[in-house]
Amino acid sequence: MTIPTGRLEVELGPRSYPIFIGPGFISDPDCYAPYIAGRQVLVVSNETVAPLYLDATESALAGLDCHHVILPDGEQYKDLATLNSIFDTLLDERLGRDVTLVALGGGVVGDMTGFAAACYQRGVGFIQVPTTLLAQVDSSVGGKTGVNHALGKNMIGAFHQPRAVIADTDTLETLPDRELAAGLAEVVKYGLIRDAAFFDWLDANRERLLDRDASALVQAIERSCRNKAEVVAADEREVGQRAFLNLGHTFGHAIEAGLGYGTWLHGEAIATGMVLAAELSARLGWLSHADVRRTRALLSGFGLPVDPPRELSAERWLALMAVDKKVLAGRLRLVLLRGIGDAVVTADFDPDILLGLLDEIAGDH
Amino acid sequence: MTIPTGRLEVELGPRSYPIFIGPGFISDPDCYAPYIAGRQVLVVSNETVAPLYLDATESALAGLDCHHVILPDGEQYKDLATLNSIFDTLLDERLGRDVTLVALGGGVVGDMTGFAAACYQRGVGFIQVPTTLLAQVDSSVGGKTGVNHALGKNMIGAFHQPRAVIADTDTLETLPDRELAAGLAEVVKYGLIRDAAFFDWLDANRERLLDRDASALVQAIERSCRNKAEVVAADEREVGQRAFLNLGHTFGHAIEAGLGYGTWLHGEAIATGMVLAAELSARLGWLSHADVRRTRALLSGFGLPVDPPRELSAERWLALMAVDKKVLAGRLRLVLLRGIGDAVVTADFDPDILLGLLDEIAGDH
Repeated sequence: MTIPTGRLEVELGPRSYPIFIGPGFISDPDCYAPYIAGRQVLVVSNETVAPLYLDATESALAGLDCHHVILPDGEQYKDLATLNSIFDTLLDERLGRDVTLVALGGGVVGDMTGFAAACYQRGVGFIQVPTTLLAQVDSSVGGKTGVNHALGKNMIGAFHQPRAVIADTDTLETLPDRELAAGLAEVVKYGLIRDAAFFDWLDANRERLLDRDASALVQAIERSCRNKAEVVAADEREVGQRAFLNLGHTFGHAIEAGLGYGTWLHGEAIATGMVLAAELSARLGWLSHADVRRTRALLSGFGLPVDPPRELSAERWLALMAVDKKVLAGRLRLVLLRGIGDAVVTADFDPDILLGLLDEIAGDH
Repeated sequence: MTIPTGRLEVELGPRSYPIFIGPGFISDPDCYAPYIAGRQVLVVSNETVAPLYLDATESALAGLDCHHVILPDGEQYKDLATLNSIFDTLLDERLGRDVTLVALGGGVVGDMTGFAAACYQRGVGFIQVPTTLLAQVDSSVGGKTGVNHALGKNMIGAFHQPRAVIADTDTLETLPDRELAAGLAEVVKYGLIRDAAFFDWLDANRERLLDRDASALVQAIERSCRNKAEVVAADEREVGQRAFLNLGHTFGHAIEAGLGYGTWLHGEAIATGMVLAAELSARLGWLSHADVRRTRALLSGFGLPVDPPRELSAERWLALMAVDKKVLAGRLRLVLLRGIGDAVVTADFDPDILLGLLDEIAGDH
């Protein structure tokens, strides 16, 4: 059986680029060569991913002047100091203005490599080779790059589009189950905010995806990227409908920050956040309770948490959502649902209904 | 007598911005208010400039939520660590995505503040208030921002245009003579590369400029910025004629790097570099010896060095110019002159004539 492969274009005028999706692409020179301007390449990876895939990547770059730098693995290294170590290598090895950076790894490697490319000599090209499902369906489209600051995540960065993205589904074979599920949370998000038919397809193909069936993964990644690309193409600098992509994120960030980053994976927090957004939408009379149940069931079926942690009081939830109870009315913009596949961004909801929900999930404090 | 003031537009489509030139503008709220999107402002300055002009700047921002951060003074602090201290302040004081940064100082403050604005939350607005002549005529146009790396100057940065530039000629009254002269070297450059009439005007108004006559300074700054703006508007990302702006820079950088950065001011090195470019142009038969003499005389009249340092051997000159003697032919692109006001960028010159010049200026080694 031939496994289907995908290619889609992210349409951004002069910054348009292709996403290649399929098994084995990581070692296919044709996915790289057209997007490398000069002869110098720097592959940026981390300690976990490099032993698995650096050789395959470098084999695709044979014949070029290829260098690499291996970063420590973890969100805690996504900072200016680690970024500077990429610049150290670029300058130590005398790589010039026509160097191409290749980001080989998950979202952290992609964000840092993209930001290094945005800033090195005021901008060089880069290719993303995302090796997690989350990075393949999320950070590979949108052009957001950056690092964290001690006082806030993703506070320092740039918009910088890759020249190409190479999403090799084979790399998902080594991904831990929990990280696969976290990626699937973002996949479900695209169904919820704008693609009801995709939601249905995910429901029907749950087992194939959990079994890491390459064909199902290609379809899920392609449809996710296509949805995100359409949103981003319409709104490159995040002023309008791009906000839909934040479904579940206000609740989800509260969970991540409230429990301490890393306790729940981002995708896990977003899964529960989406269920809360759906539940609030239902209480506002906008979404049927049946659709809330379908949302819970699909996410839960992917092994994702759908019940919020009990550690946070209602007051703490509000504080983490960066809003004061007294000025809540009309101040907190949330992404909510009017149906599966139909998101809205609004601050126009009855705050008492949100407060009631938070009181309920907060348990006894 | 009313001192004339200038305003010119740098035409860059949606990134167009005004430059206000004249005495007292630093404390004029009307130069700031239209270019501040929200209510939050962070003024970035340094230990030398803040005591002189921070109060005046903040007086123009009365009524806004105004914060400031004072950096140490000096090129050696133009690095990621100092940049991060700007981010520290932005986050400590909870300044959001609609904050406007105000760069109050010379080129170092402007470059770092502009880069901080380019990166903070992936891009916020900034206003430049350059307080040196060099910054007023050079870094206020072009959108180049960034910091140095231990292994190279300006290696990390971004193109990020200010919302407005406020060049207050009163601030030049406190500028040391040597720094005034260094700024005048860049002013002369615009005459040499593309504006022969301006060169003549500078020749005729040398004494007024050295006396810091406000009217003469306004005219010199406006004409310089206009010339640079025309070049940049035609070539925002530096692929074509923007290279003319590097007249004298290959020789000048060799002087700065060869003697150690800071021994000669940048403008001083550029002055001598321009004389060398003129001399080489004359030896190639492209420029009259009379024009070389006029170039020397004007720069020298502004108190600038026009003779190269004797410390460097011919071999060292070549190494600093990043070129190997054996492959010199056709490899080294220089900005040369075919007349005053008529620059060319070319690698098509007889290398032996350059080698002869370097041998001569190198003295005995």
